[in-house]
Amino acid sequence: MSSAAPVPRGGGRDAITRAARESFAEQGYHGTSIRDIARRAGLSLSALYHWHSGKQDLLVLLIEESTAEYFRRCEGALDEVGSHTADPAERLLALVRATVEYRVSRRVESTIAAAEWGNLAPEHRARLDGLRESAGRLWTEIVDDGVARGHFRCAHPEDARRAIVAACNAIAQWYDPAGDLAVPDLVERYGEIALRIVDHRP
Amino acid sequence: MSSAAPVPRGGGRDAITRAARESFAEQGYHGTSIRDIARRAGLSLSALYHWHSGKQDLLVLLIEESTAEYFRRCEGALDEVGSHTADPAERLLALVRATVEYRVSRRVESTIAAAEWGNLAPEHRARLDGLRESAGRLWTEIVDDGVARGHFRCAHPEDARRAIVAACNAIAQWYDPAGDLAVPDLVERYGEIALRIVDHRP
Repeated sequence: MSSAAPVPRGGGRDAITRAARESFAEQGYHGTSIRDIARRAGLSLSALYHWHSGKQDLLVLLIEESTAEYFRRCEGALDEVGSHTADPAERLLALVRATVEYRVSRRVESTIAAAEWGNLAPEHRARLDGLRESAGRLWTEIVDDGVARGHFRCAHPEDARRAIVAACNAIAQWYDPAGDLAVPDLVERYGEIALRIVDHRP
Repeated sequence: MSSAAPVPRGGGRDAITRAARESFAEQGYHGTSIRDIARRAGLSLSALYHWHSGKQDLLVLLIEESTAEYFRRCEGALDEVGSHTADPAERLLALVRATVEYRVSRRVESTIAAAEWGNLAPEHRARLDGLRESAGRLWTEIVDDGVARGHFRCAHPEDARRAIVAACNAIAQWYDPAGDLAVPDLVERYGEIALRIVDHRP
């Protein structure tokens, strides 16, 4: 096995997914060749094919892993508050926190998923659309519950949900981890914005 | 001049920009070759080069044209309300209307600009960043003015502005012109959301 640069023993898989992430982020899915990924990972093409069948496989892996992680974080955040309250505002804030923290910590994956979702092959796309919709339903249930209980007064819950998610998602595009705004402050600000969007009246 | 398909006399320029828009939207900037664009426009490569120096030129043209149109629409909407009121809420609603209507009518251009902005060459990028920032300042001035007058009570105007813009921009991703939701209703809903985000208290 020849390689363009030394790869830590057993690090092939990680090196490849890292190389795929960087290539997709910089050149886009269509602009990335499997050779680019191999070169960046410091592997021969045949070594790369030992792990992966091609760049679609890598795109799916990357989007699936990051979408699944986002979903797990959302469920985890809801489990945490759910153990002591069913208050829809508390639950909404938990979801905002999970989303903001995720977007800040996984900016590159967030951007790739947003830009390249349409390049998932149909059979993968259906499954990943399902995963994304499951995450979407977490929001919908909370907003609808808040409206049903009269805690949230927004007339159009679906638009409120979309606006909150869009605002949180956009953080991946502008947030600078080296800047002055600490993540807990960001979480608090977006929590306040989310409660105003649903027109929360405690 | 040979061509793969008939092109209306004088329609070369339009056919090329249309082909570029479709190619960038479907395959991304990096995945699009100048040959793809020529083929789709029904032109020979040399005919295409008669009009444009390459795909960067076409990306710049497309993003510049659509960003400039967005800016003009925003200014136009503000001029319209500005002639009879300086009320920051009215002005914010005018900007929301211009943005929502733009995102609905120019969904493809909106998506290309969002996805490919980073692929603008530095010399163009600086100019277009400037244009985008000019549009951003329209929002900032209104939100800051509303806060200064005590009409808007949000503690973090910059985050409020970002959240509103993100919510309006995301419309390009999900809105279905063939669906049940008419544009004026969409404008009204997002206007209400924007006023809640800035915590408007008339």
